[in-house]
Amino acid sequence: MLARIEKVRRRRPRVREERITLAHGAGGKATATLIDAVFLEAFRNPALERLGDGAAVEVDGTRLAFTTDSYVVSPLFFPGGDIGDLAVNGTVNDLAMCGARPLWLSAGFVLEEGFAVAELERIVASMARAATAAGVSIVTGDTKVVGRGKADGLFVTTAGVGVRERPTVLDAAAARPGDVVLVSGPIGDHGVTILIARGELDIDADLASDTAPLHELAAAVLDAGGDGVRVLRDATRGGVATILNEIAVASDVAVVVDETTVPVRPEVAGAAELLGIDPLYVACEGRMVVVVDAERAPAVLAAMTDRPDGTEAVAIGRVADDPPGLVLLRTGFGGTRIVDVLVGDPLPRIC
Amino acid sequence: MLARIEKVRRRRPRVREERITLAHGAGGKATATLIDAVFLEAFRNPALERLGDGAAVEVDGTRLAFTTDSYVVSPLFFPGGDIGDLAVNGTVNDLAMCGARPLWLSAGFVLEEGFAVAELERIVASMARAATAAGVSIVTGDTKVVGRGKADGLFVTTAGVGVRERPTVLDAAAARPGDVVLVSGPIGDHGVTILIARGELDIDADLASDTAPLHELAAAVLDAGGDGVRVLRDATRGGVATILNEIAVASDVAVVVDETTVPVRPEVAGAAELLGIDPLYVACEGRMVVVVDAERAPAVLAAMTDRPDGTEAVAIGRVADDPPGLVLLRTGFGGTRIVDVLVGDPLPRIC
Repeated sequence: MLARIEKVRRRRPRVREERITLAHGAGGKATATLIDAVFLEAFRNPALERLGDGAAVEVDGTRLAFTTDSYVVSPLFFPGGDIGDLAVNGTVNDLAMCGARPLWLSAGFVLEEGFAVAELERIVASMARAATAAGVSIVTGDTKVVGRGKADGLFVTTAGVGVRERPTVLDAAAARPGDVVLVSGPIGDHGVTILIARGELDIDADLASDTAPLHELAAAVLDAGGDGVRVLRDATRGGVATILNEIAVASDVAVVVDETTVPVRPEVAGAAELLGIDPLYVACEGRMVVVVDAERAPAVLAAMTDRPDGTEAVAIGRVADDPPGLVLLRTGFGGTRIVDVLVGDPLPRIC
Repeated sequence: MLARIEKVRRRRPRVREERITLAHGAGGKATATLIDAVFLEAFRNPALERLGDGAAVEVDGTRLAFTTDSYVVSPLFFPGGDIGDLAVNGTVNDLAMCGARPLWLSAGFVLEEGFAVAELERIVASMARAATAAGVSIVTGDTKVVGRGKADGLFVTTAGVGVRERPTVLDAAAARPGDVVLVSGPIGDHGVTILIARGELDIDADLASDTAPLHELAAAVLDAGGDGVRVLRDATRGGVATILNEIAVASDVAVVVDETTVPVRPEVAGAAELLGIDPLYVACEGRMVVVVDAERAPAVLAAMTDRPDGTEAVAIGRVADDPPGLVLLRTGFGGTRIVDVLVGDPLPRIC
């Protein structure tokens, strides 16, 4: 059966749907197919094909990282943050996951006619605070306005440029059997917080988004792990499960996760159970996955837990030979199941 | 009276409206106030405050330009182009106007649920062709999907990075009395084409958008003009009038335009007259304004008219001492009037 799944996955991608669905934006299977079939086919170039959190580029001997994300989170304000700091932290983190020191951000706003100027000011102030906290400057921007009913309040697209000062080459294709998989803290807080903030669930949990900049934690990981660090990825849309699937496919390895070690807050576990979703698929906005060779793993984990933004970091699994391209979960009951890529969109507009 | 206008302009900006209006996105007075009062106040940094088409930044001795624009043009497809090549050319041009060689672009898409995949493919193919034509790579991107009625088909935000290899410092504040003002071709084609494409006007004109990359023309201008080139700006949202006003204020000079020399196609002039708007305020997407010292102006103009993308370049005016901060138009009838900054939004969603 595994062989069959493998074969299906490697087939040349094609978008079967005639129209865009919410699943195309969910970060799972449909998003991957859309990206492969439409964007990669058209834009084909080596930097894009690496498909990390950003592009690694170089000019005149200066090694840079360049990344972008559009933010459409609903609601715009939620416990622990808003679309503004989410966007800044998200782009800072994408640069950090490339091993870069974040330097400059751009911000492009699409505003809906009638949006409250006071809310815009609040979001912009939050972006400014997040930028200061992360040591980056928002150096350029743009504002467009569309008529009522043609957008949903405010969308913002941030792009970022950073400098890759360290020699370590991070690549989702670099994981090797024997490597250890770490996460930097409890997963799923952001996604569940957004769902609760929408008021669609009859849940009242004491939860806040985990949105935070990860560049210092990433630097600490690289300092401690050096060349032993294979992959850094922030577990945003699609959650830890999606990141691990991308690594498994890109590196042609298995990733075996021990369910009992995956840190999930009881409130997140409870809400996820009510929703019928697995916390492994729920977005974080301030949590990273680290793949590091076994020898350097203890030093890297110690460097993480020594820091306030990594106190709850733990090892959750291992990279194995077989079955290549798959993520397996060893459950608390001693069984094993495949953690497949996300299908559909259980959590729309989470970021 | 001029003194009074001056004083009003220099007052600390404040957004008086409680809610965003279409005028805030039109590129004129309301946009400038929004940017000054909300974004500049919050993000304050030297690169942003220069407020050119992009930011001039530097790392490890490498001089870069970084820029972004969000595109919300309606309709998405129009004679001469679509939102895809418009976005790529727009970002290429913003980099070129910083005197940079464009290198890499990012693209963040916000798609509305139900958008036709075939239209997305058409737009992406158009972006790929425009990128190839401009010699840039689209190296990173993002796709988000929002529910039906929460966007208008497709919005795209491009950001770009280029390298500033030439020593020339271009700055809207660098214009000096005696300098010559050039435009690279007929103005207003893009804006009028979009309005006609919407079908709201009962006009059938043989017009196409002027969307085009300007980086080679900009390089030719800099080769011919060297340090004599003060400012390069593409005359997009708000048109040539808006750019000239920005230059007049930033450089504390007057810009005097000779109406009879401003190149406007008869179709554009006719449509503008029907609409009651001045072609000087209509967006171009492939035309640039050059401010160059008088001595180098003939060589620069010759370098432009020698190229296929600059054959219709002409001098349209001069920089003068007085009245500082204003743009004056010497009309065909021998009179003089002030070309003020744009108020309101006669041309929504033009780019």
